[in-house]
Amino acid sequence: MKGLKIAVIGGGSSYTPELADGFIKRADRLPVSEIWLVDIEAGREKLGIVAALAKRMFAGAGMNIEVKTAFERTTALENADYVIAQFRVGGLWARALDEQIPMRYRVIGQETTGPGGFAKALRTIPVMLDICRDIEKHAPKAWLINFTNPSGIITEMVHRHTNVKIIGLCNVPIGMVSNVARLLGVESSRITIDFVGLNHLIWGKDVYLDGEKVTERVLQYLCDGESMTMKNIPDLKMDADFLKSLGMIPCPYHRYYYMTEEILEEELKEFNKGKGTRATQVMEVEKELFRVYNNIQLDKKPEQLEKRGGAFYSDAAVSLISSIYNNSKDIHTVNVRNNGTISSLPDDVVIEANSVVGSSGARPLAIGRLDDSINGLVQTVKSYELLTVKAAVSGDYYTALQALICNPLVKSANTAKMILGDILKENENYLTQFRAKS
Amino acid sequence: MKGLKIAVIGGGSSYTPELADGFIKRADRLPVSEIWLVDIEAGREKLGIVAALAKRMFAGAGMNIEVKTAFERTTALENADYVIAQFRVGGLWARALDEQIPMRYRVIGQETTGPGGFAKALRTIPVMLDICRDIEKHAPKAWLINFTNPSGIITEMVHRHTNVKIIGLCNVPIGMVSNVARLLGVESSRITIDFVGLNHLIWGKDVYLDGEKVTERVLQYLCDGESMTMKNIPDLKMDADFLKSLGMIPCPYHRYYYMTEEILEEELKEFNKGKGTRATQVMEVEKELFRVYNNIQLDKKPEQLEKRGGAFYSDAAVSLISSIYNNSKDIHTVNVRNNGTISSLPDDVVIEANSVVGSSGARPLAIGRLDDSINGLVQTVKSYELLTVKAAVSGDYYTALQALICNPLVKSANTAKMILGDILKENENYLTQFRAKS
Amino acid sequence: MKGLKIAVIGGGSSYTPELADGFIKRADRLPVSEIWLVDIEAGREKLGIVAALAKRMFAGAGMNIEVKTAFERTTALENADYVIAQFRVGGLWARALDEQIPMRYRVIGQETTGPGGFAKALRTIPVMLDICRDIEKHAPKAWLINFTNPSGIITEMVHRHTNVKIIGLCNVPIGMVSNVARLLGVESSRITIDFVGLNHLIWGKDVYLDGEKVTERVLQYLCDGESMTMKNIPDLKMDADFLKSLGMIPCPYHRYYYMTEEILEEELKEFNKGKGTRATQVMEVEKELFRVYNNIQLDKKPEQLEKRGGAFYSDAAVSLISSIYNNSKDIHTVNVRNNGTISSLPDDVVIEANSVVGSSGARPLAIGRLDDSINGLVQTVKSYELLTVKAAVSGDYYTALQALICNPLVKSANTAKMILGDILKENENYLTQFRAKS
Amino acid sequence: MKGLKIAVIGGGSSYTPELADGFIKRADRLPVSEIWLVDIEAGREKLGIVAALAKRMFAGAGMNIEVKTAFERTTALENADYVIAQFRVGGLWARALDEQIPMRYRVIGQETTGPGGFAKALRTIPVMLDICRDIEKHAPKAWLINFTNPSGIITEMVHRHTNVKIIGLCNVPIGMVSNVARLLGVESSRITIDFVGLNHLIWGKDVYLDGEKVTERVLQYLCDGESMTMKNIPDLKMDADFLKSLGMIPCPYHRYYYMTEEILEEELKEFNKGKGTRATQVMEVEKELFRVYNNIQLDKKPEQLEKRGGAFYSDAAVSLISSIYNNSKDIHTVNVRNNGTISSLPDDVVIEANSVVGSSGARPLAIGRLDDSINGLVQTVKSYELLTVKAAVSGDYYTALQALICNPLVKSANTAKMILGDILKENENYLTQFRAKS
Repeated sequence: MKGLKIAVIGGGSSYTPELADGFIKRADRLPVSEIWLVDIEAGREKLGIVAALAKRMFAGAGMNIEVKTAFERTTALENADYVIAQFRVGGLWARALDEQIPMRYRVIGQETTGPGGFAKALRTIPVMLDICRDIEKHAPKAWLINFTNPSGIITEMVHRHTNVKIIGLCNVPIGMVSNVARLLGVESSRITIDFVGLNHLIWGKDVYLDGEKVTERVLQYLCDGESMTMKNIPDLKMDADFLKSLGMIPCPYHRYYYMTEEILEEELKEFNKGKGTRATQVMEVEKELFRVYNNIQLDKKPEQLEKRGGAFYSDAAVSLISSIYNNSKDIHTVNVRNNGTISSLPDDVVIEANSVVGSSGARPLAIGRLDDSINGLVQTVKSYELLTVKAAVSGDYYTALQALICNPLVKSANTAKMILGDILKENENYLTQFRAKS
Repeated sequence: MKGLKIAVIGGGSSYTPELADGFIKRADRLPVSEIWLVDIEAGREKLGIVAALAKRMFAGAGMNIEVKTAFERTTALENADYVIAQFRVGGLWARALDEQIPMRYRVIGQETTGPGGFAKALRTIPVMLDICRDIEKHAPKAWLINFTNPSGIITEMVHRHTNVKIIGLCNVPIGMVSNVARLLGVESSRITIDFVGLNHLIWGKDVYLDGEKVTERVLQYLCDGESMTMKNIPDLKMDADFLKSLGMIPCPYHRYYYMTEEILEEELKEFNKGKGTRATQVMEVEKELFRVYNNIQLDKKPEQLEKRGGAFYSDAAVSLISSIYNNSKDIHTVNVRNNGTISSLPDDVVIEANSVVGSSGARPLAIGRLDDSINGLVQTVKSYELLTVKAAVSGDYYTALQALICNPLVKSANTAKMILGDILKENENYLTQFRAKS
Repeated sequence: MKGLKIAVIGGGSSYTPELADGFIKRADRLPVSEIWLVDIEAGREKLGIVAALAKRMFAGAGMNIEVKTAFERTTALENADYVIAQFRVGGLWARALDEQIPMRYRVIGQETTGPGGFAKALRTIPVMLDICRDIEKHAPKAWLINFTNPSGIITEMVHRHTNVKIIGLCNVPIGMVSNVARLLGVESSRITIDFVGLNHLIWGKDVYLDGEKVTERVLQYLCDGESMTMKNIPDLKMDADFLKSLGMIPCPYHRYYYMTEEILEEELKEFNKGKGTRATQVMEVEKELFRVYNNIQLDKKPEQLEKRGGAFYSDAAVSLISSIYNNSKDIHTVNVRNNGTISSLPDDVVIEANSVVGSSGARPLAIGRLDDSINGLVQTVKSYELLTVKAAVSGDYYTALQALICNPLVKSANTAKMILGDILKENENYLTQFRAKS
Repeated sequence: MKGLKIAVIGGGSSYTPELADGFIKRADRLPVSEIWLVDIEAGREKLGIVAALAKRMFAGAGMNIEVKTAFERTTALENADYVIAQFRVGGLWARALDEQIPMRYRVIGQETTGPGGFAKALRTIPVMLDICRDIEKHAPKAWLINFTNPSGIITEMVHRHTNVKIIGLCNVPIGMVSNVARLLGVESSRITIDFVGLNHLIWGKDVYLDGEKVTERVLQYLCDGESMTMKNIPDLKMDADFLKSLGMIPCPYHRYYYMTEEILEEELKEFNKGKGTRATQVMEVEKELFRVYNNIQLDKKPEQLEKRGGAFYSDAAVSLISSIYNNSKDIHTVNVRNNGTISSLPDDVVIEANSVVGSSGARPLAIGRLDDSINGLVQTVKSYELLTVKAAVSGDYYTALQALICNPLVKSANTAKMILGDILKENENYLTQFRAKS
């Protein structure tokens, strides 16, 4: 029997060693024979470094996996069993712009939410659409595991405009489970969270320890000042009365929506110190990581990788592949077609939900109606996402403007227009789908 | 045959002469025999003035209608055919507070939207609930025509918590029709607007002149700088690209949502000039109006009344009563139970929609799904309204806090908490349903 | 100003004189200049007779309307303002088959419901699709007024597969209003019925006399044995307890669903007497009608026309055209896109509902959820209709089989298969879209 | 730590030894300390026999479980952890009537579907409501595992009218999985079926072997004449074209709906042979079973039990309890609140669906819209079920009549009325909620 073929789009990413580590940890369950790392010419050096490291890692683990690199993706995709998308159009320089442009207008500058995530979506969608056309042709049975951000919007687009089988992934839910476990002093495996919402906008509606509801206990920890944030989000304390009124566990990204002004002040303060944005820090971390990766003695995933915001993302991807391949029906929190799961939303939109994953894909567990306390935000962000997909695919200026106006982090139509102007101008090499607009 | 009995709650309002005028204009269609003007003791003087004016107006028109005043409402309600609600709990002083409190935190201060409308709802709902209990008992067949603001929220509460037959009224839609007619230089009767949305959050999805679609023509007028505002809303010009991207006619209140920052600056600028808020101006207008009303020569609706923001409200109420009484199946834009009209919203919420009005009430014309460009805002405001009704009826602090956090004009949870603190404290005489919270 | 151009597909129908009469009665409101009567070669003689009669009628009324005949429809459609569809594919001989085939298997044989209506839809849909392609090309602004049966299914198909603006018409609702008026001894204009359902499956949820609910009074008349049937439906009395439990006014066609066995016995009894089916009687009526029409003295709609089952259909069509042309916003009960009107059904299906009709089309009045007592039947028939449209357009045997199995008048899958076999075989000249299936 | 307390309502049932066997097989996972068998006085002898057998079985397995019997349920329920409902109001004599009454009118006579299931629901619901009131009081934290039939309707009632945590169980889905496994010659554990529908009206939308879709292969077996029926349902072959057009795996009970006439003929033929109905056969089986149970040598579940139609039901119940107790998140096909799972049905109705079961209950996996081919039947039966619950709780004759008219196996309103008359009369000792109606 032939082993599995894996294609990684954006293979030169600093996350790749974690992917390799994920396959090594699951050697008994995932008979991988080839891994193709695909990247663009501009990433040739980094691709060489991570490919060499991956080879050393598999060799060190005594595994017989071929690691191949490619700058043209069709050969890599040909009959692939799983395609992993982890690319970043425009790299960290584009991210820096995404974070800076909104701040010029006193709007949150963030990589995946607000205008920053919007710009990233506009750049990424045309590329992802091309990739999907190739998958449809060269690997129609493959599963696409996406963790290119904004993961929810990308998954939405692939569902609407292609026939590719996609599951969208995010590390926020596993991060929340792990944080709750830490607060309660128990193993993560004993915790279940009933998640409800969208990518980067997900609430823990109820938390269970060994199946018993402990939501209030967890909320009390948060009210008492315990933290549940991520590397890339300022750790501002949420108000206790707010948490009690919400009655759910917010995700780290909720700070952008519930503490907009406070986060903005923090961002501006940091930026004005001349430290740049999060992109600047990540560039430093990356530089250091590739220095470490390049050490030919190294044949393990280095500890430094965990400093990166997206840690555990890649391991989650391999874990998901294992559930699909082995038809093991584990529960993962992923981005899937709604199909009634949240009955306040149309069937055909993508949500993030606890889902049973097996060989036939991910089946979300029914949730029912959204509570009024979160309905507005979920509906608003979903409408924003749908308009963003439409704008990115059509290149229509007015749809893009409406999308940005609908984003809850943008304060006015005029601000949206100015930000959109800057985004279109400063990303013009990437946003060829948009007709020139002075 | 006995004539109709009308009871007016808040009968001492400066709007009452317009009501009287409405009955006079429809003398041939509405056989009214008694009008009861009910008010509170504190309004005794004003009540006396308007009652006297109303008597002179009916006499002047040669109509035999008894005008009675009352400070206790059960006699007034007894077997009434129509009850009109136009009261204001706390009067204009409370309105001034509603407008000022939010501004302390750089949040829009407005009578019916944002935290101001929220505070008004909290004060009004317990009183309206008491009135409805009396209507259920003393006039179970009566129609309640409500134009006490926030009209949509009040109608929502009456639908959820009472058996009273209510139709909620607003003058924004007729105002928009009349403005569009003015722009196109035609009679209002030739214009139809397909309205979609909620009270004070309504869009003209399409505009028809004699049944032919002229939406783009009207939008072009607005893009060219033509104004469509109301007395009480700063007349800031909306951006042409924004209007094109929206593709619908916004209502005057949309400025608060689409131009939040700009309106806030305008409000603060005016307030800092020491002119007070809109309430202050209205107090002046009212003082002048009652001076005019008190002139015993006067037996007609004085022209000055049209300066008041709510002009035409009362005439719309009488026109509505005529459609019900005569089963004439005219189309009015009113607040009614959704029942599928907007299929993206639950059946059991109140919306503002074009409705056929006859003796069996108001039947809205089906609309279908909300466009993504307006879905988020409509869902958000509706969820805010439902939480507000729940908070006002239960007096639960945390529900009130969630309501305010969900309001799209409030920028952060912390701001919501501070504003709520001020509202509860400074309205404590009215908000007895809330347990003390330091 | 140029007058209106009307194209009538199936212009040689015996209904045409009623159409002409309808235009004559509305001469003051509908400035018609040309009426094109289109038919197939086989109908040349009848077409000649009705065209001549129509000319005499207009002349007799002193109206200057050109009446033209055509056997090729594009010229007739060119820039038409209104297209009226009243054709019958296969004529009355095909109808006779539709009525007889099901009876072979002890299943109701009826022209528009059950397997008979199904066969008629399979024959009609390909022709209607061709007509719509021509309308899209030659008269894209025209309104298509359809009363070709099964009117609900035809309208559903046009909505799903074409861009033609269609309103589907039926005379059942006006017939019910007129019957209720007769029972109550009042003018039809004083009666309103809240209709809910689908074409030929419509209930009067509530009945109002001058806006006052009289549903129970009307039900009592029916319980007492008063009749409300139509020419083409056996007048079997409905059980009083059944009517009380239903609490709504059933339509005449409901007998087929609620009294299936009884109607079947009646049909078989009549048929076994050698009288043929309803088609046979209609052939007689038609022969007589055309004899009368051919009288060159005649210049009025002859009384005999009212014996025909579809009486008043054509007048309803002209009345509808008048509401559209004059933007008069009258309420008609027509077949329109649901758009949330019945919130238990998807937005994109066609229902029959009270609708406000003006120049921009028909807007149904919101109804809300279906009661459990009628939900099953409505859902079943709507699913049957959707499958029938799909089968007729695709020519897929298995879809056709599912459609017929889903029809509530068909008793078992095996019966459905046998009936379908006969339909396909005996209609093979018309059902070319179906691949041969032995 | 205290062991689990189990209360079995209908403890004297012939199924109880399987329950006992289920607990023995899961001794390592379910620390049961007490089992209370509750029954009515009339069942005293049988209760004694099964209790004695259960004791011998536990002793034989070396388990220390107290077996107690009771004729009054409050002590048995006091602080119970799990309550199992397996009672039968009126016993097999009532079942015989349920099967015979409809046949008098040429309608299917069946225990759980059609008028037979309706009569059983009317008898069972008042008793179940009383039991639930006791559970609310004496064991508010207990899970109620219901396999009293009609299981879907009973679960619907408990969800609507009580606060008891219920999961409804049926052995049809496990039976289908096991039959498919047999056809494919593999272990059941390798088969997954995507079930969709309601209790005793469930389709296998897709079948997977090790996660790979094999639906067409399974359908082909059925087309080729392979059987998939149950002990209590005549094994009539389904037509191959019908199966292809359906494209899903029907459940054994579907024969009643898709082959109504054929099954009826079969039933009447058997009955006319003087063999009685299925109840008569079951009485024989039961008599034999209790003879076997009474053998004091016996300390194992006897093989003969598997002849009973409901075999494996009880084992499924214990397996479910184990998933709840151990929070093991296995997938069971159970009756749960819809919550959007089937997006064509309201959130608040009970459906039968694949669900993840853990300590917090059963969460169904989202399905989306119903296909048109099954929408009508599902909607009709669900509406029938809702009306049946309403009729059984209220005792309203007209609601009962509507329920029966809506049942798709009843052919006409008149037939429904006659059957209802017989049911009410012949069950009058049980149906005290109904006012006398001659």
